[in-house]
Amino acid sequence: MEEKKRVTFDDIAKYTKFSKTTISRYFNDPGSLTEKSQHIISDALEKLDYHENRVARILAMGKTEFIGVIVPEFYHRFYSEVLNQILATYETFGYKFLVFIGNNNKESERRYIRELLSYQIEGMIVLSHTLSSRELSKFPIPVVAIEREDQFVCSVNTDNESGGRQAAALLQELQCDVLIHINAPIDHCIPAYDRIRGFRDYCQSNGLPYEIILRELDRSYEVDQAILKDILGEWDRKYAHQKIGVFLANDTTANTLLNLIIRRYGYLPKEYSIIGFDNSPTSREAIIPLSTVGQQVDRLAHEAVRLLVDQIKARKQGKTLAESPPVHKIVPPILFRRGTAGGMDVI
Amino acid sequence: MEEKKRVTFDDIAKYTKFSKTTISRYFNDPGSLTEKSQHIISDALEKLDYHENRVARILAMGKTEFIGVIVPEFYHRFYSEVLNQILATYETFGYKFLVFIGNNNKESERRYIRELLSYQIEGMIVLSHTLSSRELSKFPIPVVAIEREDQFVCSVNTDNESGGRQAAALLQELQCDVLIHINAPIDHCIPAYDRIRGFRDYCQSNGLPYEIILRELDRSYEVDQAILKDILGEWDRKYAHQKIGVFLANDTTANTLLNLIIRRYGYLPKEYSIIGFDNSPTSREAIIPLSTVGQQVDRLAHEAVRLLVDQIKARKQGKTLAESPPVHKIVPPILFRRGTAGGMDVI
Repeated sequence: MEEKKRVTFDDIAKYTKFSKTTISRYFNDPGSLTEKSQHIISDALEKLDYHENRVARILAMGKTEFIGVIVPEFYHRFYSEVLNQILATYETFGYKFLVFIGNNNKESERRYIRELLSYQIEGMIVLSHTLSSRELSKFPIPVVAIEREDQFVCSVNTDNESGGRQAAALLQELQCDVLIHINAPIDHCIPAYDRIRGFRDYCQSNGLPYEIILRELDRSYEVDQAILKDILGEWDRKYAHQKIGVFLANDTTANTLLNLIIRRYGYLPKEYSIIGFDNSPTSREAIIPLSTVGQQVDRLAHEAVRLLVDQIKARKQGKTLAESPPVHKIVPPILFRRGTAGGMDVI
Repeated sequence: MEEKKRVTFDDIAKYTKFSKTTISRYFNDPGSLTEKSQHIISDALEKLDYHENRVARILAMGKTEFIGVIVPEFYHRFYSEVLNQILATYETFGYKFLVFIGNNNKESERRYIRELLSYQIEGMIVLSHTLSSRELSKFPIPVVAIEREDQFVCSVNTDNESGGRQAAALLQELQCDVLIHINAPIDHCIPAYDRIRGFRDYCQSNGLPYEIILRELDRSYEVDQAILKDILGEWDRKYAHQKIGVFLANDTTANTLLNLIIRRYGYLPKEYSIIGFDNSPTSREAIIPLSTVGQQVDRLAHEAVRLLVDQIKARKQGKTLAESPPVHKIVPPILFRRGTAGGMDVI
């Protein structure tokens, strides 16, 4: 491409007949202008072929406004929803997101992070479980964790214990003979472990018959389906003619179980109550809308970005990361009563 | 953080006892080293607290290795799957991805792109339909479109016409009395329009009774459900006792229709055959695994990144974008016969 004379704010102001202050606001706080003004300036930038170069600014101020986001996988729609909501904060905070899906490859994740650091990104949001929070805390930029082990870094988590208790309380209210929680054998230091703890504690302190089933779930739909089919078979022997209340670790697994039951009976027998976790799109799009302990994904994402931006700003004011202990924010879950447990079954 | 002496390749080579060439390969072609060597070097970088600074390199060489990716939404899991596969090419091509979800907001998308340009990103992959390919072609970097209007930019698309024909051929083979295609009233210049054309052409040239139903679908599960419920009601009157073969524009809509039918009957009556499009996870996780015209998402993503990287390299060798006409690559679709049309119904 041929080199052109650089277009300045002056040129844009002259062309649009707006003041230079207005042009500056377009770049730094566009929401403060009317849609019409934004449109006029946007058109002018096209016409004038304006291209800002911020690379010099990166060198001068160390300000890239890039944030790295590391997501473990997309099998659970919770993760794509969190990513969706994180990306949506662009309108509010102006940060751009470099996204990576870890797929549990530690070496690859490390190399990616190191590369991002070389480009002077300003912070990271980590949802993957691959690297320890101790390792994350040693990177020279602020890190915020969402729903993962977070001892040494800031984090935003759902109140998982409350979620487990709410699920048990609903199954109690529905007068289930036995309350069952199905989960993977997850580590105690992962926030989601508190779903197990909350459920068990509620059952114990209320004297409710319960069972915790831990299996190697969450690998693929087909694997999960085979595991849940076995579990259903066990229940036929163990809990014949009893009313079974099942709370599952996430909507994806809850949907898999629901599909198996509907395939068998053609409907959801009143002997079964099913509750998922997350309120991911899967729960609303299930054959019968799934009751679920909803994570407030928009709030989790928004709080995580805000917490990170606050830390980035604090660092620029000269505070080191070591000066303040990690902040852990908690977002309450919301119970949704739908067709599979205690809700109206509207279609 | 206190300033430290910069760690060099020499320091890393001395520490690990590898040659400087090996250290250089770790950064530029890590796959050529054994996993063990990678691990030793990776650990050394931690120990030595190595932080490369590539910002100077951006200024010197204009090489950021950043690519912008613009996705329209995540309601259709096709988009999250394409993103997943694009991000996975990091291992092959080394490019990092700045991701944005457009949500059909033209002004916001423009502003985002302009900002990315100011950071010297090297190319863009666009899946959203918001900006015209003419506008995209005027940006000073290569652009590759996936499954969107692509007259003025390079693109990678599925052979949608073949997909439409394959769906019609399967419904013919299943001896349906009427072949129905449900889609949204999409623009003729969008590749997905060819699904309608391929289906219609096949029906016409084979003298098959068919109907094309175009409705404002793809907004939300609840809206789509209401629209499809109406359509099912019309069929009761119009096609009573006939065998209906339905081909839907995507797996998401096909799943919504399947759920409505199973909710009504408790099973899929032999009067209905259903085929979706995409082979997104939704098709495998449906209550009955959905037959679908599968897009080869991994190939679409890989070809798109490769095409973009080729263009980026060509530009660095001095070729301007205008010199070569846009390249349009076509990836064939693969028909999956599953429980809802012509397949084995295994659970």
